[in-house]
Order: sequence, then C-alpha cells, then structure tokens
Amino acid sequence: MNPVLYNLMAEYGMALDEDRLEDWVELFEEACDYRIVTRENVEQGLPNVLIWCDNKNMLRDRVESYRNVNLYNPHYDRHVIGLLRLVGEKDGLWTFDASYSLFQTDLEGESRLFSVGRYRVEARVEGKAAKLKTVTVIADTGQIPSLLATPI
Amino acid sequence: MNPVLYNLMAEYGMALDEDRLEDWVELFEEACDYRIVTRENVEQGLPNVLIWCDNKNMLRDRVESYRNVNLYNPHYDRHVIGLLRLVGEKDGLWTFDASYSLFQTDLEGESRLFSVGRYRVEARVEGKAAKLKTVTVIADTGQIPSLLATPI
Amino acid sequence: MNPVLYNLMAEYGMALDEDRLEDWVELFEEACDYRIVTRENVEQGLPNVLIWCDNKNMLRDRVESYRNVNLYNPHYDRHVIGLLRLVGEKDGLWTFDASYSLFQTDLEGESRLFSVGRYRVEARVEGKAAKLKTVTVIADTGQIPSLLATPI
Repeated sequence: MNPVLYNLMAEYGMALDEDRLEDWVELFEEACDYRIVTRENVEQGLPNVLIWCDNKNMLRDRVESYRNVNLYNPHYDRHVIGLLRLVGEKDGLWTFDASYSLFQTDLEGESRLFSVGRYRVEARVEGKAAKLKTVTVIADTGQIPSLLATPI
Repeated sequence: MNPVLYNLMAEYGMALDEDRLEDWVELFEEACDYRIVTRENVEQGLPNVLIWCDNKNMLRDRVESYRNVNLYNPHYDRHVIGLLRLVGEKDGLWTFDASYSLFQTDLEGESRLFSVGRYRVEARVEGKAAKLKTVTVIADTGQIPSLLATPI
Repeated sequence: MNPVLYNLMAEYGMALDEDRLEDWVELFEEACDYRIVTRENVEQGLPNVLIWCDNKNMLRDRVESYRNVNLYNPHYDRHVIGLLRLVGEKDGLWTFDASYSLFQTDLEGESRLFSVGRYRVEARVEGKAAKLKTVTVIADTGQIPSLLATPI
C-alpha cells in the first residue's frame, strides 16, 4: 500500500475532526464525487443517497451551508480510521477501502459511538501528492441526520 | 513493518465485515491455527478456548455451519483494526500484534460496541503475498456467544 | 510516513494495554514531555492540564504511584489508534497526529468507550529506532478521573 494514501486518509479524518472543512474540500480533485449511502440500501439495490456531491463546487456549497447552521449542533467529531485494503491501481489511480469508526462528544464532554462503516476511495497519486477522486461512505449505522450533518 | 502485512490485516477485517467468510478462510495456510480466547483466561492460565480450529479444513467446516445458522443472528460486523506492532521476523515468518474494535449493527441500523481485544498473528510473507499461519484472538470483552458467532 | 513511527505508536498502545507501564516509559527520551489536556480547554485557551510530566523521571514516578493504587481500579485498557497524519520533519524530529479510541473492560468482562481524542507527537528517528520526545493527549472526552488514571 502506498504510504501517501495512509497520510491522505489520516488528513481526511483530522480535517473533519478539527472542523477544518475547507481543508477537507481541498483534498478532492475538481471532478470528484462524494456521497454517503447506507449499507442496507446498497445491499438491497436501493438508489437512496443521504448526501451526494458530484463535483468540488457542490462540496464547497455544502461546507458553506454547514457553516451557517452548525450553531445548532455543537459537538466534536472523532474519526478512527482502520487499515487500508488495496483493491487495485491503474495509471496512478488507486482504489482502496478503509473501515471507520466515528465518535461524537457533546458539550458536557460525553463521547458516544455515532457511526461505523466503510470508505470506498479512488485517489490519484502523483509523486508524494495525492488527491481524492471519489469517496463513497457506506454507513452500517442507519440513523444519519442529513441536514445538519458534517461529512463523515 | 512490512506493508504487505497491513494489507493482509485490512483484508482480514473486510472479508469478515462483508460476510465473505470463504475469502477469509483463504487468507490462511493449510496448516494453520485460529482460536479465540478471553484475556481473563489467558492471564489466569486457564485453558478455556471459545473457538479453536487447528487446520484449514476446520475453518472451512466452521464457516459452513455458520452459513446454516446465520439466519438467526442477522447483523453487520465492522472491524476497526489498529496499527501493527512488530514482535519479530524469522525466515519470512512475521509475528505481530494488532488491537481491534468490533462493532455490530442490528436490523434497525443501531450500532454498538461488540468486542475489543488483540490479535496475535504469525504470517508468512513471500514477495508481495502473505498468508496467515496462526491467529489468536485475545478478547478483552468477556461475553462472546460462541455458537452463532462469526469469527472475530 | 516513516514506518518506524507506525511501529512506535503501536507499541505505545500495546504497552499501556498490557500494563507494561515501565516499557511505556522507556519509549520516551530523558528530556521529554507528556501531558493530557482536554480539547475544550485547548480551544478556550485555558491552561488546565490533567496530567503533566516534563521529564522522564516524572513519568517513572507516576508509574510507580500508579502501581501503588491500581488495586482499586482493576480494568483492562484497549487503545485502537488510527492512521498517522504527518505534520512535518526536521533533522530527524518528526511531528505527527493520530486519533485514538480507548476502551475499558471491567471485571465482569463488559467493555465500554472510555475516551476518544488525538495525540500530538514529536518523535526522534535514528535508523530503525525511534523515541518519543513529546506526547500531548488532547482528549475530546471531558471526564477523565486524574488520580487513578493510567496514561492514555
């Protein structure tokens, strides 16, 4: 596995957890695709998508709207991302999976499990740099409030 | 740490989580050993073993029986496996530990912590391929239903 | 990311989880700094520190006092540490972050989430060896009993 990809996914989680959402957007290419689906829907062949941004401007818009509403859901996120499972590589485009656990901590300092699932990622590596082309979050956990949610 | 081993353990978790139990069995050598013990028993020197397969055919049998009963315990598993701690290497046989957290999600989409513990692994590396020789799951969590349980 | 650092952090977690606190101390340089702070305090610019050892002898003392009180809080710890995010490297001194989840299991074998947060680490790498210079634990979770607590 390419160590650049380990660093990319570490930064992916850290940017979200530190509320650096604009930095998180910059991890993507312009022609990118980010979506959150539930595993149940995937396995039943249902087309439901909880969040879907099919280019970088949509990601930017989403982050901007989130900035306008996040007063109402103050919490800390914490991603613990597992080992990367390589699926394949072609012409510098790497496909891999990674399990994640996502915890939330409320204003009283209490932490709880918020979501678990898997990332399916395509990332382009050029030398020591890497950009995300597609990220599909396949959440095992079913209850995901979509309006106020930060990205997973 | 050998990156091949990172990929091996990532696939180990993904195969279980995606219910590809037959693929999981294929990660092992023919002469292998897979067992689940509790940490309490290990520390008290007790011989209790929750699951024990001492060759690959026993793993195959176990997966087959699981296929006949799994209707009764439908859920999603999710392994988040931590960094690998190298213990040693001799003649291509690597010994290492890794912590795991295992979450289960029920049919209502609710996720909960199911088990935490540690893997002690011996794996044989040949070039870019690796096979599991022994996997001992040492579970901190005590309550492990053994009959219907998927491997950890 | 330097694979030596992955191994260092894996051993960091394992030493704590296996109650090898003396081994954990040996991962640090003599001139080291270990502290636990809450994220809330960091973000509010408050100087509160839950645990602070600013050299290796203080770490040794802390471990020794813990050995005298740990009868009263018997449990198993389990760290699952996520991918390392490289911040920078200069003259062999590496700075990186890693998210952690920490679970505790009580005498009845029940496991629960105890703390989540992030490590900010400076580590010195010389060949295949690495030593910790500073570890700052920034805990999202607010409730950390400080007297009887093992290091995080």
